[in-house]
Amino acid sequence: MVKLPRPARALNSKGRVLDPRALLAAGANKIDFERLEALAGRSLLEVGDLDLATIHELCKFAALLELTEIARHRPLAGKLIITAFFEASTRTRLSFESAAARLDARVLSVPDGKVTGVAKGESLADIGEMFNSYGDLVVMRHPRVSALDEIRTNLTRPLLNAGNGTGEHPTQALLDWYCLFKWRPELMDLGLAADRRLHLGIIGTPASMRAVRSFLLLALAQPHAVAKISLLSESARPLDDSLVAAVAASEVELEISSSGLDEVLPSLDAIYMNSIALLGGSYEELDQRFSLRGDSPFAAKAVVLHPLARKAELDVSLDDTEHNLYFAQAAGAVFLRQAVLISLLGAIDRVPAGVHYLAS
Amino acid sequence: MVKLPRPARALNSKGRVLDPRALLAAGANKIDFERLEALAGRSLLEVGDLDLATIHELCKFAALLELTEIARHRPLAGKLIITAFFEASTRTRLSFESAAARLDARVLSVPDGKVTGVAKGESLADIGEMFNSYGDLVVMRHPRVSALDEIRTNLTRPLLNAGNGTGEHPTQALLDWYCLFKWRPELMDLGLAADRRLHLGIIGTPASMRAVRSFLLLALAQPHAVAKISLLSESARPLDDSLVAAVAASEVELEISSSGLDEVLPSLDAIYMNSIALLGGSYEELDQRFSLRGDSPFAAKAVVLHPLARKAELDVSLDDTEHNLYFAQAAGAVFLRQAVLISLLGAIDRVPAGVHYLAS
Amino acid sequence: MVKLPRPARALNSKGRVLDPRALLAAGANKIDFERLEALAGRSLLEVGDLDLATIHELCKFAALLELTEIARHRPLAGKLIITAFFEASTRTRLSFESAAARLDARVLSVPDGKVTGVAKGESLADIGEMFNSYGDLVVMRHPRVSALDEIRTNLTRPLLNAGNGTGEHPTQALLDWYCLFKWRPELMDLGLAADRRLHLGIIGTPASMRAVRSFLLLALAQPHAVAKISLLSESARPLDDSLVAAVAASEVELEISSSGLDEVLPSLDAIYMNSIALLGGSYEELDQRFSLRGDSPFAAKAVVLHPLARKAELDVSLDDTEHNLYFAQAAGAVFLRQAVLISLLGAIDRVPAGVHYLAS
Repeated sequence: MVKLPRPARALNSKGRVLDPRALLAAGANKIDFERLEALAGRSLLEVGDLDLATIHELCKFAALLELTEIARHRPLAGKLIITAFFEASTRTRLSFESAAARLDARVLSVPDGKVTGVAKGESLADIGEMFNSYGDLVVMRHPRVSALDEIRTNLTRPLLNAGNGTGEHPTQALLDWYCLFKWRPELMDLGLAADRRLHLGIIGTPASMRAVRSFLLLALAQPHAVAKISLLSESARPLDDSLVAAVAASEVELEISSSGLDEVLPSLDAIYMNSIALLGGSYEELDQRFSLRGDSPFAAKAVVLHPLARKAELDVSLDDTEHNLYFAQAAGAVFLRQAVLISLLGAIDRVPAGVHYLAS
Repeated sequence: MVKLPRPARALNSKGRVLDPRALLAAGANKIDFERLEALAGRSLLEVGDLDLATIHELCKFAALLELTEIARHRPLAGKLIITAFFEASTRTRLSFESAAARLDARVLSVPDGKVTGVAKGESLADIGEMFNSYGDLVVMRHPRVSALDEIRTNLTRPLLNAGNGTGEHPTQALLDWYCLFKWRPELMDLGLAADRRLHLGIIGTPASMRAVRSFLLLALAQPHAVAKISLLSESARPLDDSLVAAVAASEVELEISSSGLDEVLPSLDAIYMNSIALLGGSYEELDQRFSLRGDSPFAAKAVVLHPLARKAELDVSLDDTEHNLYFAQAAGAVFLRQAVLISLLGAIDRVPAGVHYLAS
Repeated sequence: MVKLPRPARALNSKGRVLDPRALLAAGANKIDFERLEALAGRSLLEVGDLDLATIHELCKFAALLELTEIARHRPLAGKLIITAFFEASTRTRLSFESAAARLDARVLSVPDGKVTGVAKGESLADIGEMFNSYGDLVVMRHPRVSALDEIRTNLTRPLLNAGNGTGEHPTQALLDWYCLFKWRPELMDLGLAADRRLHLGIIGTPASMRAVRSFLLLALAQPHAVAKISLLSESARPLDDSLVAAVAASEVELEISSSGLDEVLPSLDAIYMNSIALLGGSYEELDQRFSLRGDSPFAAKAVVLHPLARKAELDVSLDDTEHNLYFAQAAGAVFLRQAVLISLLGAIDRVPAGVHYLAS
């Protein structure tokens, strides 16, 4: 077997550095590319669009992309990706555009729907029809939950949801779990012993934070990896009806904590946190009452994830500690999104044979 | 002779699907590439810059681009196109950028002149001088009619007018006619029998809608294809002096209709409609009094064109009918613009010999 | 020795046309590429980051880029450059993006920090961390002087300062001197006779105009080329403490002129002028009292430089005269920036052997 290359210099400047080789080794260095080929031409609107086995293969493919120089084979040459951000976001838009550009795709960028002709009042349905002839795949962020249905009235190209109001943000959840799988590859083992399963903390309000919603849904789908979730929120009703139903249908225990953060914190293996929420159409900061600092009472090996951008809830004094997994999490985003883009665009077969050894 | 490829899956999701092969067959599958080579280095400011024979060749070349994989030969590799939109427009800007990117040109994008350093008050003449060293061709949209002259004070690179105030929008008119030629290739026949010529309806105000102005001018230049034009407008003076002169100089009959739309509609073969007008420097909706719906009294085979974006004047109930030619019209835009860009950039000789068979 | 190609058609439409071959000939057509290779991975924050010998080599390399078709060898293929303009600027952003695109680098563009997620209040330190995984080099403009330190809290990629408040704008100064070296290649001669040295005029306020500050600092570093500087400013204190110290440390004589422009002008060999200043966080026009026109009392061979954009201080009546060096100055910007980008990105070795003859 060809030896995997040694990890490149860490992309993140601070916090833990993760090695994608561990994740691949846990999967016996095999990737089921057929499962990824089956994604060709499909859309990704919510985490429920993917089964867990496919998610594992996507994460392993992301690890391969992180380790190898597949980019130089230009697997997306000739492909045109539209990044339509009807709600501005430097971070997410550039993440997709960096992922695409490094694979040699071309990008048509709509950085801010508000400053475009959309101001004339064109419907999303008509914009979807326009995109049919302009590109091969559409990455869209929009402040309305209903935007996905609206654009798909006419859009026939694959649609990748990069955030729809308080709805979902599926690639964020995928990259969150890609990070956790690199941190503890055993989490992909469906037969993991009960005492190895995570006690997750979630600080935030899933009902009004799409990244937290998608992360939670993916956690609930993994009872073999997650023993218990402690949810801390300022909101009196942090879960809406659909989330309550998802919790009821899951074997994962979810506890809405009424005690203070410092009482729960020492028992947590991993903490997922966010503060920026979409409330009534505008962004507000929630859950600032719960903040983490370098001297918070963490368990010794506990790690913190955060989708970023952050405000005061995540203090910079945590940056230089081993609890900081959020910089490594951010550093893996581009590779996970590359795995998704290559799969949806049906370009798995352009990954050169030389790197297919993992599947042999 | 090499057989033309079968048409790809339709780009438009609804309405009529047009086959570019019919257009090429009408021209005996020959393209006069020398006529297109003569465009190298030239600017395209108004439809009058092109004679009808050249327009026919551009449309045939667009059909070839729509049918074949010329893009993979990267005919515009190394070329740099500046899209300078001093008036924001998602639709038109992305159309040019998609056309350019698929041919492997690079694009420098100025999505909205208002948010740039132009706010400091730099003159268009100085911006033109800047563009001389930044790119190979400039696509410009500007709210002022005079902007073309202003930037050409110093600009030495080819300029492609993508809309200058109430002036012209020549590539829109070209793609409108590209659509009509695909719909009825016989319209390119200079000896077309009188009873085969179109009765066109135009709903809009040419004097304040640049797309309608350019479309009308091109219609007036084709007496062999257009028997009569019925113009419906809310404006008391829908034609300005230069348009009145163009009508007077044309053999095409133009009637400004004073009756209602439903009385004229049954006699029309094709209807061109628009509602967004530039009035006194800002956009307003005109001619909303005239609206088309799925149950409007069309002739059985009548088709509707619209430059989009639309408002209430073009009801979505028309989308799923055979009268909907506007989605096919929009779907052809990228190819027509590719034909223009390749020609003005002098890259006709980069179209590989294998696809030149049409001219042999 | 291989003969250098003849100069291409002038890029500038008016004013003097400069020939890069003269500059290369003055350096015996040799470029010390090792000096440029030493820049790999480094940042460029201020003109003081480069010694004069390196600046000479960068200018010679720029001349080579201006003369040859190095771009077609795609020396920056696979490289990703982020242009982060937290202060909007068409001119400078497009200059960098044109330079990058012609070398086949990919560009992630943040045209206006104000319309992005940065509005949510993300720190520059966190943005720097984000950029670590998104690109290979960051070009940043920001209204705060301190922005360089802030983003470098976490940024590990090379940073190219494209203007930081009233701080510096080093590539502007480099391209200013690239222009002067093309105009008079002897200015690179460290043993230049005293009577051949320049009497420079600077019209502007270095303390609040970053381009003027960087130009002045580079002038002060070249006593072999500059005999005297006459500074005209409306400000009562045109130099701040650090500039006063730089003047004191230089062998170049600097005189702050109290007389009118017309009295000083006839003695000047070259005039550098600017009017847009950053005062208290917003742009204002300074020094409009001093304006140049076609009929100003220039010395016969005097030349005028201006970083542009201009206002009334530089009248268009100068454009068609031989005093106009500012259009040639602007036309060289892309090549100088290409030389810097290739060097910082460590891609000197991708310049094909065929053009290395100059160094042999």
